[in-house]
Amino acid sequence: MTKNDYYSQENHGPYSLFDLGDFNLEEGGVIKNCQLAYSTFGSLNSQKDNAILVSTWYSGTSKIMEQVYVGDEHAIDPNKYFIIIVNQIGNGLSSSPDNVKNSVAASFPKVRIGDDVRAQHTLVTKYFGLSSLALVVGGSMGAQQTWEWAVKYPDMVKRAAPIAGTAKNTTHDFLFTQTLNEAIMSDPAWECGAYKNPNAVIDGLRRHADLWSVMGFSTEMFKKELWRDLGFSSVEEFCKGFTQAYFAPMDPNNLLTLAWKWQRGDVSRNTDGDLKKALNRITAKLFVMPINTDMFFPPKDCEDNQKMVANSELRVISTDWGHLGLFGMDPLYIKQVDQHLSDLLDTPV
Amino acid sequence: MTKNDYYSQENHGPYSLFDLGDFNLEEGGVIKNCQLAYSTFGSLNSQKDNAILVSTWYSGTSKIMEQVYVGDEHAIDPNKYFIIIVNQIGNGLSSSPDNVKNSVAASFPKVRIGDDVRAQHTLVTKYFGLSSLALVVGGSMGAQQTWEWAVKYPDMVKRAAPIAGTAKNTTHDFLFTQTLNEAIMSDPAWECGAYKNPNAVIDGLRRHADLWSVMGFSTEMFKKELWRDLGFSSVEEFCKGFTQAYFAPMDPNNLLTLAWKWQRGDVSRNTDGDLKKALNRITAKLFVMPINTDMFFPPKDCEDNQKMVANSELRVISTDWGHLGLFGMDPLYIKQVDQHLSDLLDTPV
Repeated sequence: MTKNDYYSQENHGPYSLFDLGDFNLEEGGVIKNCQLAYSTFGSLNSQKDNAILVSTWYSGTSKIMEQVYVGDEHAIDPNKYFIIIVNQIGNGLSSSPDNVKNSVAASFPKVRIGDDVRAQHTLVTKYFGLSSLALVVGGSMGAQQTWEWAVKYPDMVKRAAPIAGTAKNTTHDFLFTQTLNEAIMSDPAWECGAYKNPNAVIDGLRRHADLWSVMGFSTEMFKKELWRDLGFSSVEEFCKGFTQAYFAPMDPNNLLTLAWKWQRGDVSRNTDGDLKKALNRITAKLFVMPINTDMFFPPKDCEDNQKMVANSELRVISTDWGHLGLFGMDPLYIKQVDQHLSDLLDTPV
Repeated sequence: MTKNDYYSQENHGPYSLFDLGDFNLEEGGVIKNCQLAYSTFGSLNSQKDNAILVSTWYSGTSKIMEQVYVGDEHAIDPNKYFIIIVNQIGNGLSSSPDNVKNSVAASFPKVRIGDDVRAQHTLVTKYFGLSSLALVVGGSMGAQQTWEWAVKYPDMVKRAAPIAGTAKNTTHDFLFTQTLNEAIMSDPAWECGAYKNPNAVIDGLRRHADLWSVMGFSTEMFKKELWRDLGFSSVEEFCKGFTQAYFAPMDPNNLLTLAWKWQRGDVSRNTDGDLKKALNRITAKLFVMPINTDMFFPPKDCEDNQKMVANSELRVISTDWGHLGLFGMDPLYIKQVDQHLSDLLDTPV
């Protein structure tokens, strides 16, 4: 296997590695010497009550969360909070198909959102010695982890803000994600996951990216030609230079591992399939923050979840950028996120 | 080339063929002995002012328009109107890659919406001797033809009802359609269009169908499991037995010809790219009828067009079935369509 240097410290660090040992998974598999990659910002106060946990989305790492959401000018301010951004399993920084040693990438075990949250819980309790989190926040698959945190560890999570993501994945979203997977797996170069060169599946990754161009943005974004704001001079150039270029260096098996997890995100696994019962477990003050133009985590689906949580508010974020507005290309998007998160962090619990 | 009997009289007839002779196309190509397939219902009155022209959508033929939209119980009532349903070029009944003689299917020329409408104009004026149409109506690509009719032949079109389709295709819709094309063309069995067996591209057609399952319906439809109304007992069965099964027997090059045309639908080609000027040409009483859950011809895009037409109304149709609600599986959908079309037909012009 040729090394994929996309996931390097140079590109995504500095990040640290926490050793979980052999980590048993909900689906029955085990990741030997499982490692969680994380970055921290700011300092823990003496009461140990100012920690914020930030989770990552499909294809994303701690780096983009740092760049878009963390800073002096943001609600997630390292001057006030101790911020831990944890990379989810399979994202290329934490244990993933492309970085497991002495193993076949294609046989990397199935991982669930619940596994990630359990692993993150070990990190924050055993390593950082925390017994509460002032806020858990994340977008998309990061929102799935946020929901899972609030349900699984209600005593620990004081506030939670799932952005553009649901507590239980919808059938429609499952089918969309399946087309992403099919785009990769239908490329003969994927070789049932046994490709030797991580860049071999370039055609499949390109088609996968093109599906993101359709479902990830919105018809308004294209109509207003907002891609010009990113410096592109044609829509073809944007699809190639932004969406295709973003996914091209990534490892196909990593993406498939993440997608399998995404498709099956479901907090009701904690309560024998009873979603209402699962959401009733939440004691955190919860802001549910869908994006108004999101095509696969649409506001209605997020609102359906929010309505089942007692201490919650629906805070819809407006942007023409659709789901991928999460990347923060719209300055008004991050302004709204910061306002909502500030309101939430200012709410006594 | 093995014959594809999907497009037979048995499956889609009875339909008649009108001979256009050698038909010159906007893009510079020519279809030798071009034929338009059409079906008629009802009778022309002595004033010759009760004709309705119905156009077809991507993958559709006159048969489904007859089955869903025409009948005693519908606004398009053969007891009152002379109804002509015209199959668009490339749909497998009219001249199409799979039925051209002595020619290579893959080199079938590029056809535009404007070509279809010009061909249809010849049929209704020269063959049927009509000088006016009481109504032009169609859904999706049929809506594109409806818009084109109203702009190109304003003196002839008294009323027009584009359902779930725009006057000028959006960039977002173009990109979606491109993913449909890519699903077919990325199948090695497509052989750049030179496949010998029309059923060879089965994998590509399956992936193409799966994209329709994502973009063609809506998250509400899946959440409410409305596919149960069609007799399916699981969503997998529905995607396989409905969407995949629907497209599987179709000819890949036919679909690509239609998609190329769909992507470039644009009435402003009649006015040197000036959309406002094109829509100002419309004198017909116009009802613009988007479907509220449509993901690629969303209400907003249709409304943008409608607002530019003087004598027009926006009539949004509500259904959880999304764009493919056009197929009429929701009885409330067709009820709304009938109500709007009755209102329109009752409007004096």
